[in-house]
Amino acid sequence: MTREGGPEFVPVPDRIATFDNDGTLWSEQPAYFQLTFAANRMRQIAEKHPEFGERPIFKAAIEGDLRPALAGTVRDRLELVGASHAGLTVEEYTAIVYNWHLTARHPRFDRLYTDLVYQPMLELLAYLRDNRFQTYIVSGGGAEFMRVWAEEIYGIPRERVVGSTIKVKYEERDGEPVIVRLAEVELIDDGAGKVEGIHRTIGRRPIAAFGNSDGDYEMLRWATSGRGRRLGLIVHHTDATREWSYDRNSRVGRLSKALDEAPRRGWVVLDMKADWRVIYPFQAR
Amino acid sequence: MTREGGPEFVPVPDRIATFDNDGTLWSEQPAYFQLTFAANRMRQIAEKHPEFGERPIFKAAIEGDLRPALAGTVRDRLELVGASHAGLTVEEYTAIVYNWHLTARHPRFDRLYTDLVYQPMLELLAYLRDNRFQTYIVSGGGAEFMRVWAEEIYGIPRERVVGSTIKVKYEERDGEPVIVRLAEVELIDDGAGKVEGIHRTIGRRPIAAFGNSDGDYEMLRWATSGRGRRLGLIVHHTDATREWSYDRNSRVGRLSKALDEAPRRGWVVLDMKADWRVIYPFQAR
Repeated sequence: MTREGGPEFVPVPDRIATFDNDGTLWSEQPAYFQLTFAANRMRQIAEKHPEFGERPIFKAAIEGDLRPALAGTVRDRLELVGASHAGLTVEEYTAIVYNWHLTARHPRFDRLYTDLVYQPMLELLAYLRDNRFQTYIVSGGGAEFMRVWAEEIYGIPRERVVGSTIKVKYEERDGEPVIVRLAEVELIDDGAGKVEGIHRTIGRRPIAAFGNSDGDYEMLRWATSGRGRRLGLIVHHTDATREWSYDRNSRVGRLSKALDEAPRRGWVVLDMKADWRVIYPFQAR
Repeated sequence: MTREGGPEFVPVPDRIATFDNDGTLWSEQPAYFQLTFAANRMRQIAEKHPEFGERPIFKAAIEGDLRPALAGTVRDRLELVGASHAGLTVEEYTAIVYNWHLTARHPRFDRLYTDLVYQPMLELLAYLRDNRFQTYIVSGGGAEFMRVWAEEIYGIPRERVVGSTIKVKYEERDGEPVIVRLAEVELIDDGAGKVEGIHRTIGRRPIAAFGNSDGDYEMLRWATSGRGRRLGLIVHHTDATREWSYDRNSRVGRLSKALDEAPRRGWVVLDMKADWRVIYPFQAR
């Protein structure tokens, strides 16, 4: 595809590859990492927000139980994300996320959350960029959350992070312009919303897409239905010892329809246990 | 700003420059070009859409009178844009816009609309890119409309075009995935909405911003309020002979508040008549 004049040549601007984040570039168990982050914040500010207690999902999250949030919809979880940091300027929010990524640790591995990225996917991102692909994140997670650390961790700059968004409001505070986070969900970048988000932000059809759950089904369909060579890949979580093993019955990263259709769509199903010698970078050292 | 180690050095990823389109990169009189394009389409399909006649702005546009649309809000005009091409796939829409940009002619100059771009701004875009700036369009106009020709005309790739958006819907037609335009307005990229659009799409604060109307005020404020050196510039339309002359009382590209505040904000006010030797590329030949 990169050999000029060859039959499958793809011009550089069309070399677009889109990656889901949770479960595709980093782990997502026992709960999406951003959900844990948002619930912790919600717990810290709960005293000042008695209204949180009126919503069962928020109330449970504050009490340390994320199961209702995980049993809910993507919108439910994004509403929790929105409520947890509403009223902050984007600079304040960025500082909080930045601190989180340097300090918060995943309980199972006692490692930074950002240590739980997949070494083979880092290599794949670098390989594609070496071949002049643009690599994008297209995730149901919050764009603003991922942007804080995506460049450092994945080499993906802020403007190539597509995700769900919380409404923001431009205003002046003491004569200085600021952007303030509201509580309201703006765009849900999941399922068909991923295709819409790709269209809105990138404006081109990807030629390669990488996911791990049914939330990636439409993105995989969209990327692999165009003319010319295409690549769709599903990360199948099969390694309970080194990572986690889950698919059809998981509340997190449920994978069923996309797995069923993978053979006839020509999508590669990656078997984490069998195919990956190393999962996390710290295991490679 | 580009001299590494210098006191004003700006790293490459932060070299973001944002440009309004209508009235800043190309002309916008006697009506925004996209509005003329959309009204023409609405006229073509009006027979099949009796509901258009129920809306005074649409009815007037079909009859060739754009004054009510220009007297209305940005939302009014975007609703006209949405209604004019609803139900088309984005490929179909792209083909129509592509054909328009190759054939439709501006009545005053009998030139293609895309010939009415400003030569000095093309040079500015190239100059900034030569200095490793990312140049973005941030326009109240439709992102999908501009993306069709922005790369060819301005050298700005699709993913660097931020604009207003019409809702789209992913679906399968005859087993093939398509993205279909709806009639509904999604995001209005004007005024404070430009700052929100910059945040949503780029995720960084620009260090230079270029506009020509009060719809660019918040973008100019946002870009020029950060730390370090900043540049804000307003194109003031002062040349009735070679282009148009208008500001405070214009229904198109009204410029009043931003003009008043330019001196104390340190924004450059460009006097088109005095400062530009050439307006359009065809005049330079």
